[in-house]
Formats: sequence, C-alpha cells, structure tokens
Amino acid sequence: MLDKDYMSLALNLVKMTSGQTSPNPAVGAVVVNQGKIVGIGAHLKAGEEHAEVHALNMAGDRAAGGTIYVTLEPCSHYGKTPPCADMIIERGISRAVIATSDPNPQVAGNGIQKLKNAGIEVVVGVMEKEARKYNQDFFHYMKTNRPFVTLKMAVSLDGKMATASGESQWITGPEARKDGHCLRHQHDAILVGIGTVLADNPSLTARLGRVQGAHPVRVILDSQLRTPLAANIVNDRLAPTWILTLEGQKGNQKAEALKSRGIDIYYFEDLSISNILTFLGKKAIKSLLVEGGAAVQDAFLQSRLIDQLVAYIAPKVIGGKDALTAFGGKGISKLADALSLTFEETTKIGDDIKIVAHVKGD
Amino acid sequence: MLDKDYMSLALNLVKMTSGQTSPNPAVGAVVVNQGKIVGIGAHLKAGEEHAEVHALNMAGDRAAGGTIYVTLEPCSHYGKTPPCADMIIERGISRAVIATSDPNPQVAGNGIQKLKNAGIEVVVGVMEKEARKYNQDFFHYMKTNRPFVTLKMAVSLDGKMATASGESQWITGPEARKDGHCLRHQHDAILVGIGTVLADNPSLTARLGRVQGAHPVRVILDSQLRTPLAANIVNDRLAPTWILTLEGQKGNQKAEALKSRGIDIYYFEDLSISNILTFLGKKAIKSLLVEGGAAVQDAFLQSRLIDQLVAYIAPKVIGGKDALTAFGGKGISKLADALSLTFEETTKIGDDIKIVAHVKGD
Repeated sequence: MLDKDYMSLALNLVKMTSGQTSPNPAVGAVVVNQGKIVGIGAHLKAGEEHAEVHALNMAGDRAAGGTIYVTLEPCSHYGKTPPCADMIIERGISRAVIATSDPNPQVAGNGIQKLKNAGIEVVVGVMEKEARKYNQDFFHYMKTNRPFVTLKMAVSLDGKMATASGESQWITGPEARKDGHCLRHQHDAILVGIGTVLADNPSLTARLGRVQGAHPVRVILDSQLRTPLAANIVNDRLAPTWILTLEGQKGNQKAEALKSRGIDIYYFEDLSISNILTFLGKKAIKSLLVEGGAAVQDAFLQSRLIDQLVAYIAPKVIGGKDALTAFGGKGISKLADALSLTFEETTKIGDDIKIVAHVKGD
Repeated sequence: MLDKDYMSLALNLVKMTSGQTSPNPAVGAVVVNQGKIVGIGAHLKAGEEHAEVHALNMAGDRAAGGTIYVTLEPCSHYGKTPPCADMIIERGISRAVIATSDPNPQVAGNGIQKLKNAGIEVVVGVMEKEARKYNQDFFHYMKTNRPFVTLKMAVSLDGKMATASGESQWITGPEARKDGHCLRHQHDAILVGIGTVLADNPSLTARLGRVQGAHPVRVILDSQLRTPLAANIVNDRLAPTWILTLEGQKGNQKAEALKSRGIDIYYFEDLSISNILTFLGKKAIKSLLVEGGAAVQDAFLQSRLIDQLVAYIAPKVIGGKDALTAFGGKGISKLADALSLTFEETTKIGDDIKIVAHVKGD
C-alpha cells in the first residue's frame, strides 16, 4: 500500500460526507500502524469531533508510532473542539501525511508547523488536487467570503428547457432528476427567482427517497414580495426559507404574513448578484445552487460570479426559435466575452448525459 | 486468438475505408491459416476488387484449408467484378466467418448458401452489431432507397450557435472543426440552405490538411436561385455541386450562368425533405450530412427524416434569449412529440465534447 492508497480511502470519506459538515469542510482521516489500518474517521457535523479525533480514538493505544493520513491540515486552534494537532502529538503519531494545507487563516500552516516542532515527520501534498476539488466550495469561501456558485440546467440536446408552447416537465429522465436532488443535498443553499416560484410552485428540497437528503436553505429573489402565501416553500416548513426583496417593500403587510409562517425576509437596496453573494457569505452559506429561471441565470451570467455549471442533457430534439433556453435575457454579445469553461466530467446518467464544467480562471 | 479478434481487425479496415467506397459498403477481410494471418484485404473503391479478392490474392496457395473472416456476406452475383463466393470456393477455403448478411437483394443470403453448398463451414453473426454500425448508411440505404441523414450542430453548452448580435465564428475549437471535416469526408453529400451560402460563403469541402479528404457532393437548397455567381461553391470546382430549386425557376437566366460554371441544377415541384431524399437516393447518395442553417434543420426536424445527430459542444456560455440556436422555426410544440434520441457516444475532442445520438426507432 502506498500513501496515496490510504489517502484515497480518506478522500472517499470526504466525498461521502460532503454536504453534511457545513460551514466546516468535509475531512477524512485514516491511522495506520505496521501496515494495518487501526483507525478511520470523518468529520460528520459542524461542532462535533474532527476526523482526526474519531480516527485516533478508534486507534487507541495503537496510534503510538503510527502514521495518520488526513485530507486537510489538522487544526491548531481552539474552536468548538480542542486542536487536533495537539491530540496527534499526544497520541504519539510518528508520521503525518496531509493532502493539503488549510486556507482558514486561523490554521494556514500552523497545524503543520506544530507537528513538525514536535518531531513528527510531515508530508504535505499527497492527492492535493483531489482534496481541493472535493472541498472546492470551502476553499472558494475561505478565499472570497462568498459562496461557491453552481448553476444547474436541464436541457434537450438542442439546448431547450421547454417547448415553444411552454411545456417543460420533464425534459430529463428520473435518474438525472434524482442526481439533481443529490446536488441540492450537497449545497448549503438553493436560489431561484420569483418567476420559478410562481410558475412551478417548487419545493426545492433534496428528495432522495428512503435515503433522506439534507435540504438546503431556500433563497428566493422576490423584489416585489409576490411569493404566494399558499406556495409550497411557505407552508411545508421542510427547510429555512429566505426571501430577498427590496427596501421599498418594508411595511408591506405581506411581509408580516410570510414571517408569521416562519419565512425570513431580508431587505436590499439593490438585488445585484454581487450584493446577494456577499450577504449569503456573511450568513455562512459556502455553496449555492442556482436553479433558474432564465432571467436569474442571465443575471448570474452577466455578473460573471458563476463558478461551475452542471448540465443535464436529454436525448431529445425540441427545436423552435421561441422555445425557452437555459439562459434568457440579453446574453453575451461578443463571442470573445462568452463565459469560458473547462469540461471536467461527462457521465451518462440513465438515458441523459451530465456535464460538469468549471468556469475558467476561477 | 478468437474469431472476434480477427473480425476486429477486419472491422478496423472497414472503419478506416468508410467514406471511400460509396455507393458500395466498406468491407474488410482477413485470411488465417494454421494460426497465422496469411491475407488481408479491404474494398478500396467502387468498381475495384472486393475485400475478399485482395485478401485471397495476398494469401495465394496458403488460402487452401484456411479460414476467411469477412465483415459482410460475400457476393454471389456478377456485378462490376465476379462473385467473391466463387473465388472463396475455388481457393479451397474451409471455413468462412461472416459478420453480417448482405441486405442487397442481389445477395441477401445467396452468398452464404453458395459457400455452404460447397461444403464450407460458415459462421454468421460474429460482431454483427459493430459491422452494421460501421456501414449504417449502406444498410439504411438498402432498406429505404434514401440516404442515411446526419445533422451536425456546433453549439455552446447553453445551446447557442451564435451570439445575439450574430457572431458565430468560431464556437468550437480547431480539433472539433477538424473532426467536422472528417465527418464530411465520410459522407457522400453535404446539404445546406441558401441562407448559409449567402451568410458564410462556405466551401463545404473536407479539409484535412496533408491527409487529403474526399469531398462530398454539395447540395444547395435554393428555391429562388439566389446562389451568387461569385460563391466559393460555384467557382472552386473542388466537388460536384447540385442546386435544388423550384420548377418556377425554369427559364431563369441565372441557371445558365451557373450551369456554364459546372453546377448542376435540378427542378422540383416541391422542395419537401421527403422529395429531396428520394431524389438523392436515386442519385446513389447513401449518406447525407446536413449542416444547416437553422431553417433547414427545422425542416428536417419537422419531416422526422433525421437518422443521427452529431453535436459538438463548446465550453462556453453565450446566453441571450435571441441568440441563434441549432434549430429555428416552429420546433415541436408537445414534449411527447420531441424527436427521441439515444446517446451513442460522448467523446472529448480538444476542449469540446462530441455527442453522437441516434434517432430512436430508426
């Protein structure tokens, strides 16, 4: 077994717990002694034990003289839990293999230094690229104080979201729709415009059947407070719901009616995408899934504050000059100014194709 | 080595010679004796030797007692060349492994029967699916007397062919554009509407650099004979050019001017897609590549006479409600009536993604 084999296991734990640790990053840890795995751990929930603590506790006395593999630099500060670096030292670990340093300014190399000072052999950078990718929202958030923004689109092969007559359910198949629910599960918040609320009355929850999903915070852009009191998102109480509106709506009686149903209302001078993302960052939202409609997608496109696109492409041709496409509005007029992407993943999901694309330069 | 290993080699010959044998199918053959390959052949050009002839001639005396692998049933009739089945018998082949029977009514099992009658052990159906796929245009043509129709589209991830201001060169990268030239090389004819001729003045040739491509016949839908005398397709004399127009244009002086430059003009009562494909079938065109524009694509969509789509998807978001999409016109209004596809292949070409999709039920 090589270092990267053990780190792969630790990263698999990260992948599976991604979406349940926010605002903390997902972290995995493995302790190995004399060629045998003696401890496995993952951070499961913010405020609870870090991955290293679980793994070291499982290892018990067998941690002494062993190697710990951890996907993120161990913390060196007192947060909600004591510093993991201290515990690694106390338990007598002799070698620490770390995928990547922690961008959190409270850690940022201090954890690594602490281990080194205690005489532990430290290796940093094993599977670093993968470790950063699995926690891309966390790294982005630490750098920008804003959420990592993913736009989702579900279209026919010829790029249509609906027929010219407006029919749109369902373009993609059941497997792709389920994958879309996994995507919601992995995000802290989901955002739609009021147009989508009025047209589809969506629940915006992560519906994964018997494997229950974690529902993201629902963020609705609603400048005129048009959200109906009868809307699903107002009444189901399945997830926090935040309506973002304009200051001019202060005093609107509708606000009181919405609040009495548990909805939070936030007033903005200007509902620019930049303002919205700064606000969400302050609310500890580190990943945001944007699910349209076309006008909201266009606003995000114009703002250039998109980090990733996830496209589900259905094996259909709908055609039609006036059929709705994923991005409405004015769009980009010069080809050289088009949002430039890198295709990261292409997978077949049921009969559909899923494409994950990163925005270049992000 | 198994039968399918030798058949794979024969099919590789088919793949590589596809596009140079029309109106004949591409065929590959391998002769094996005592575990050694003793002959290899492919049909290279209509009117010349069939694959079996090349392979048997290479094998010489060593064909006797050997096995022949051939991707299509050997012919049993006198065409431009004598029957291959007879030659296989004469050379003393003892076993024939055939991927698929020949749908040509002049063969259609007669070749296989002839071999069996001569006491040769015959196996039919090894890698049949692949053999039919590589010659899908030939099988389609034999069944329908019309060309196999492939629509090509090059779009951004959000389905746009151009920006709202009309800028369209180039959406996809150089590798995808070169692949598009390979696609032309593999087709007997390429079809565009007069709108595309007027807007882009294309050459519609297969430009593959030092590896020269075979240029398809250029078919232009031009109901009013608006093709400019200065157009590239009128003057470059690189490939046959057929203008399909309406009977009302008979007597139009423009026709004479075009004819004097080597262009063929055909008059139709009605330029329906169905009429056009029947005409092209009669002209021995067994594969047709449709390259737009949006109105022509829509006419094909409405006709339901599309067999395959090839989409090149670029890592860009262009957006815009009014930006041109691959299919213009009215499109399909009910989702249940959308053209239903099966995604066959998804490959990364340069920075782009290529999707090959077959129309269901074809």
